[in-house]
Amino acid sequence: MVYKKITLIGSSDESFDAATDDAVDRAEETLDNVKWVEVDDLSVEIASVEGREYQAEVTVAFELEDGE
Amino acid sequence: MVYKKITLIGSSDESFDAATDDAVDRAEETLDNVKWVEVDDLSVEIASVEGREYQAEVTVAFELEDGE
Amino acid sequence: MVYKKITLIGSSDESFDAATDDAVDRAEETLDNVKWVEVDDLSVEIASVEGREYQAEVTVAFELEDGE
Amino acid sequence: MVYKKITLIGSSDESFDAATDDAVDRAEETLDNVKWVEVDDLSVEIASVEGREYQAEVTVAFELEDGE
Amino acid sequence: MVYKKITLIGSSDESFDAATDDAVDRAEETLDNVKWVEVDDLSVEIASVEGREYQAEVTVAFELEDGE
Amino acid sequence: MVYKKITLIGSSDESFDAATDDAVDRAEETLDNVKWVEVDDLSVEIASVEGREYQAEVTVAFELEDGE
Amino acid sequence: MVYKKITLIGSSDESFDAATDDAVDRAEETLDNVKWVEVDDLSVEIASVEGREYQAEVTVAFELEDGE
Amino acid sequence: MVYKKITLIGSSDESFDAATDDAVDRAEETLDNVKWVEVDDLSVEIASVEGREYQAEVTVAFELEDGE
Amino acid sequence: MVYKKITLIGSSDESFDAATDDAVDRAEETLDNVKWVEVDDLSVEIASVEGREYQAEVTVAFELEDGE
Amino acid sequence: MVYKKITLIGSSDESFDAATDDAVDRAEETLDNVKWVEVDDLSVEIASVEGREYQAEVTVAFELEDGE
Amino acid sequence: MVYKKITLIGSSDESFDAATDDAVDRAEETLDNVKWVEVDDLSVEIASVEGREYQAEVTVAFELEDGE
Amino acid sequence: MVYKKITLIGSSDESFDAATDDAVDRAEETLDNVKWVEVDDLSVEIASVEGREYQAEVTVAFELEDGE
Repeated sequence: MVYKKITLIGSSDESFDAATDDAVDRAEETLDNVKWVEVDDLSVEIASVEGREYQAEVTVAFELEDGE
Repeated sequence: MVYKKITLIGSSDESFDAATDDAVDRAEETLDNVKWVEVDDLSVEIASVEGREYQAEVTVAFELEDGE
Repeated sequence: MVYKKITLIGSSDESFDAATDDAVDRAEETLDNVKWVEVDDLSVEIASVEGREYQAEVTVAFELEDGE
Repeated sequence: MVYKKITLIGSSDESFDAATDDAVDRAEETLDNVKWVEVDDLSVEIASVEGREYQAEVTVAFELEDGE
Repeated sequence: MVYKKITLIGSSDESFDAATDDAVDRAEETLDNVKWVEVDDLSVEIASVEGREYQAEVTVAFELEDGE
Repeated sequence: MVYKKITLIGSSDESFDAATDDAVDRAEETLDNVKWVEVDDLSVEIASVEGREYQAEVTVAFELEDGE
Repeated sequence: MVYKKITLIGSSDESFDAATDDAVDRAEETLDNVKWVEVDDLSVEIASVEGREYQAEVTVAFELEDGE
Repeated sequence: MVYKKITLIGSSDESFDAATDDAVDRAEETLDNVKWVEVDDLSVEIASVEGREYQAEVTVAFELEDGE
Repeated sequence: MVYKKITLIGSSDESFDAATDDAVDRAEETLDNVKWVEVDDLSVEIASVEGREYQAEVTVAFELEDGE
Repeated sequence: MVYKKITLIGSSDESFDAATDDAVDRAEETLDNVKWVEVDDLSVEIASVEGREYQAEVTVAFELEDGE
Repeated sequence: MVYKKITLIGSSDESFDAATDDAVDRAEETLDNVKWVEVDDLSVEIASVEGREYQAEVTVAFELEDGE
Repeated sequence: MVYKKITLIGSSDESFDAATDDAVDRAEETLDNVKWVEVDDLSVEIASVEGREYQAEVTVAFELEDGE
């Protein structure tokens, strides 16, 4: 049983919880066997968006299948 | 006046705020004189729960009473 | 084009999102050209307030104007 | 469900694996519901022992029971 | 010559050496040109396994081939 | 032989040395077999005290006795 | 909008700027939508090369497309 | 209620306590509402002074007034 | 003698050296008595510029004058 | 009584324990009064060796003699 | 002009200032051209001494002479 | 095969690349078997020099010979 970790940044115009969910949703759409997620950084983007964009950088751990 | 610090992990199926409150609630039930709380880590457990469990690891500082 | 970074701590009796917004609001009232904000620390103050005060320490990046 | 974390240092005159096991053994003797253990630091004590003493500083996470 | 780094977690019911080898074995099965491996974290999983599972989180560096 | 580590914050209106001693004194009053102490953080509290209160956050290592 | 981050190491026999560009060039050849790059580490390899090889370890952030 | 943090370095030819006080004195002369101070770094300058100059780098937190 | 530290980000379309100089130039235009500069982070902005913009985040230390 | 610390990297084709011992052996051959050793990093070299070379970077603390 | 840095640990039964001076004294007895000293860690040894021994781990920077 | 690591600071009035080379040049003049170099910190000295002095603090790894 070997796990792999990747780093994603999710975003939301609502909250840090929703930004985290955005990244976890993407991980679960494209990866099988997501096991846990660590929040590495929270930030707010202002310059390139209207209003405020909440961002959550997360590390996603998932189990590798055979041959992966 | 001497403070002690301990580390707790609270959880919630709703949000990181609620996970933090979960740990602070427990601290206040069992400790007198809780002074402040620092959030050390936020994470999301997926493998061992239904849906997502938001977790907050926190350090709780409280004042020691005499002889404690 | 030169940016400057300053560190603020916002607070809220509601949530970490609102505490972060409190600091960003203050930054935008007194600074032009706020570009992005990094969350450095989350904490909960208990001893000196009624109930719980959620606090967010953030670093605010803004563009300096000429001669600033 | 709230977890607590404590820090122990185990030792062995054989290996770092055995030093880690020494700390985990002690945790399991005195705590119910040990969930996982993180290795924080490995070191070798020489001055105050005969030969070499391998040491492992670990953080032990366990589930608190009601009222604990 | 460009290298890429990925993060894997290997496991073993025997030792941290074997957990590291488990991750390196997997890397070498699926990647050409593995160059070196850094150990980031050692831990012991207890709750979800029988006995103890030693885990090693490692960063694997490998050389990218053209077009990769 | 297993050691445990706990975190205390001592204080003094005189100096950081005295604040450290304050925490070590408390540790030695309530724990047998204190072995060494690491200074983690030094700070000065101003808002909630008269004058200045020097604070030292320290980690205290002590040997556990059987069954502890 | 979700970003992913990967870690590359570029090299040059000239300078750290060129080593960084080497990694960024590779990222832009194989990834669409590269957004920004953070320099994590600079080093100089001597043993396995003629002369000196300047190396830059960088983290590359790029926007994921649908289904990626 | 929003706090701001700034970084100062105080010095003394006597002690680290006095170097810290030097920075805190300056903060209190020019800022209202200083709340607390964190010690970031201690050092000793030798090359550019006679004898030894003890230095303390500190972060000063103070409450912003309206419009500040 | 008290020093203050501030954080600036300089940029250049040429090199990290030039990006650092850009921040130091700005510091010297608006501050007297700049003493030294520490490089905190190097990065490359790609999304919001043509080509590549090298950025250097630096901490600038300068001596405060009386009453400052 | 003054201690000095130096950094060594030991290696073994067997295990991390043996790689650590390799560095400690060398320290004890050439230094009197070695007191303790801290493990800073574990890694596995693959590119420049046959098979795998386990490496342990350690900091060795020893007591200085008069005039040393 | 090239500087070298070494790490020493000084001790005192009086104070952290004296422990730091102990290490700086030793550095100045055996090295020419000591330029500055950074305090890395403060600790208190209890187990192997009578009373308390204050310890300061410091990094000493000195200028290398030709051929050194 | 045991490696040792030492820390040097090189300088240049031209660039960070040249400051790094300055330290590596010195290492290669006085040490056999230099293997690799890690850049720890970049800074710019202003107060004690004319113009700007670019500085690079580096860690140099070299192979120890028998009896060294």
